Amino acid sequence: MRVALDGMGGDRAPEAVITGAILAAREFPQLKEIVIIGPRDLLEKELSKHKPYPQAITVYHASEVIGMNESPLLAVRGKKNSTVSTAVNLAKENRVEAIVSAGNTGAAVCAATLKLKLLKGVERPGIAVTVPTLKEPSVLIDVGANIDPKPTHLLQYGIMGDVYSRFILNKKNVKVGLLNIGEEEYKGTEFVRETHKLLGESRLQFIGNVEGSDLFTGDCDVIVCDGFVGNVALKVSEGLAETIGKLLKKGLTENLLTRVGAFLSRNAFSSLRRETDYAEYGGAPLLGINGICTICHGSSSPKAIKNAIRVAMEFINHRVNRHIVEAITNND
Amino acid sequence: MRVALDGMGGDRAPEAVITGAILAAREFPQLKEIVIIGPRDLLEKELSKHKPYPQAITVYHASEVIGMNESPLLAVRGKKNSTVSTAVNLAKENRVEAIVSAGNTGAAVCAATLKLKLLKGVERPGIAVTVPTLKEPSVLIDVGANIDPKPTHLLQYGIMGDVYSRFILNKKNVKVGLLNIGEEEYKGTEFVRETHKLLGESRLQFIGNVEGSDLFTGDCDVIVCDGFVGNVALKVSEGLAETIGKLLKKGLTENLLTRVGAFLSRNAFSSLRRETDYAEYGGAPLLGINGICTICHGSSSPKAIKNAIRVAMEFINHRVNRHIVEAITNND
Repeated sequence: MRVALDGMGGDRAPEAVITGAILAAREFPQLKEIVIIGPRDLLEKELSKHKPYPQAITVYHASEVIGMNESPLLAVRGKKNSTVSTAVNLAKENRVEAIVSAGNTGAAVCAATLKLKLLKGVERPGIAVTVPTLKEPSVLIDVGANIDPKPTHLLQYGIMGDVYSRFILNKKNVKVGLLNIGEEEYKGTEFVRETHKLLGESRLQFIGNVEGSDLFTGDCDVIVCDGFVGNVALKVSEGLAETIGKLLKKGLTENLLTRVGAFLSRNAFSSLRRETDYAEYGGAPLLGINGICTICHGSSSPKAIKNAIRVAMEFINHRVNRHIVEAITNND
Repeated sequence: MRVALDGMGGDRAPEAVITGAILAAREFPQLKEIVIIGPRDLLEKELSKHKPYPQAITVYHASEVIGMNESPLLAVRGKKNSTVSTAVNLAKENRVEAIVSAGNTGAAVCAATLKLKLLKGVERPGIAVTVPTLKEPSVLIDVGANIDPKPTHLLQYGIMGDVYSRFILNKKNVKVGLLNIGEEEYKGTEFVRETHKLLGESRLQFIGNVEGSDLFTGDCDVIVCDGFVGNVALKVSEGLAETIGKLLKKGLTENLLTRVGAFLSRNAFSSLRRETDYAEYGGAPLLGINGICTICHGSSSPKAIKNAIRVAMEFINHRVNRHIVEAITNND
C-alpha cells in the first residue's frame, strides 16, 4: 500500500503534513510507502528534525506549489510541476494507490479529474465529508467539487454516498436525504424538486427532504446537496463550533469559581472537543474519480493528516471504487 | 402604536403567543393595542388564564388556521379567513401598523406580499435575520423569502440590510459581504459573480465575498445570500447549537465531579445561552414590503414573541420603510 502526500498543502505545511505522515507510518505498518511531494531540500530539512523517522517515508521532488487562493484551473494548467499535479501523476502511473492533499481544494479536484478521469458511468465527482452527529457520523456530499450541478449529479452523489457509508463507515440500511428548506415535497427550487424525483425513483433508501438542522441529529446517513450549499453548510458549522468554543472559554475563565468549575468538568469538555473534532474523521474523499484522492482541511493538524491517510487506506482496502461502479451501473 | 399578532402561529400557539403578547403589553407602555387574531373562543379561554391582563390586549376573530406544512400560495388563496391573512388585512386597512407571526413563514411572506405589495422600487422582499456573533450582531438576508432570486434582488437585499443595520441595530459604517464559497472574486457560480459585480458598483461599503465561517465573527455587518442558501445556513446553525448543547449537557452530568464543576461554572453556561439565544433578537422582519411584518421562529417562546413585537415597534419608530425607499431610489 503506497500513498502520495502533497507535502506543501495546507496552512501548516510542510510541518503539519510531515508530522502527520510520520504518525501514520508509525501507526499503520501495512503502509509500504508514504511519498511526500515537494521541494526536496525543504522537505528533507523538515524531516531531519524527526530523525530517526520510519523507512516508509520517502521524498519526491516537485518544485512548484499552488497557493490556497489561486484559481484552480489556471494554476493546474500553468504549474505543470506543482506538488498536487505530481501526486496525481504518480497515481496515474500506478506508483501510488492514493493521494492526500490539504492544499487548494479546487486544484486537487481539478488535477485529479483531468488526469485520472472519472469512474465508468460517473458524470461529476463530489467531495464527501463525514460529519459528527448525536448518533453515528453522517456523510454530506457534495461540499464544493461541483457548485452548479444537474439533478443527475446529485442522484449519483446519493449512490456514491451510500456506497461510502456501507463500506467505510460500516453502515447497513443507509438512509439518504436531500438537503432542502423544508420537509414537504413541494419545497425548494425546481432543481431540488427534480432531484427529489430522481432520488425517489432510485434504488436508494430515500427518506425525502431533510433540513439544515438535521445535519447533526444522525437520523439521516447521507445528505445530498449541491457543492455551493454544502460548502456553506460545512463552513457555517465550523465557524459556529469555533465561536461557541470561544464564548464558552471566555465565560469559563471569567472568575475563580467558573475556573474551578471548568477544571472539575474538564473531562466533559475534552469529550465534547473529541466528538466534534473534524480531525478525528480525517480527510474528505473525492468520490467518482478513477483513483483515490482524499482532501483535507487547509488548517489540518498532524492528526487530521494521519486520519486522512487512514481514510485513503480504507478506501484501498475496501475497493470502494469497484463498488461505486457497480452501484452506478445497477441504478441505470 | 398598534400591532396585530397571529394568535395561532407557531408550534406553541396559542399559549406562547398570548403569554408573549402579555409580556410585551406590560413592558412597552407605548403600545396602544396588541390585536391577537384567531378563533375568538379559543383565544379568550387562553387569555382568561392570565386575568387580569393588560387592556392593550384585544382579540379579533379569524376562523381558519394555516398549518406549518401547508403549501403557502395554495393555503393563502384557499383560506381567505386565515389568521395570517386577517392580520395582513388589518394592516392594509391601517387598523394596525405592523403584524407579527410565528406561523408558516411562506404563508406570511405570500399574504404580506400579495396584499400589502412592495415598496417603491423594490423587486422582491427578503427575510433579514439577526445573528449573534463574537462582536455586535450581524444581519443575514435572505433566509427564505426568495429561493430563486436574480442578482438585482441580492443587491437590493444589501441595500435593505444596510438600512436595517443603521436604523434598528444603530450601526455606522455598515460593511456588506456576499456569502460565497471562497474570498476570491473568481469564486462561486455565475449568479454569485454577477451579484458581486453589482454590489461592487453600488454605494454600499461592500467588502467582497465572505464564507460560511464568517457568519459569527461579527466582522461583516450584513451578509447577503439567496433564500435557499440562507435558510440552510440558518438551520445548520440552529441544529449545531442545539447539538453542542446536548453533548455538553450529557458530558456535564456524567458523574459527580463534572456535575459539581457544571454547578460552579453555571454562570458561564447561562451567559453562553443568552449570547447565542435567537429569542433575544426576536423576529426577523420581511424587508421590502409596503408595511411591517415580523416573522418568528415556529418554536418561538413567549420571550421571542415579546422581542418580535419590540422589533416591529422599532421598525415603526424609525420609519425604516421610508429609509429603504430612499436608499433604493438613490442607488438607481
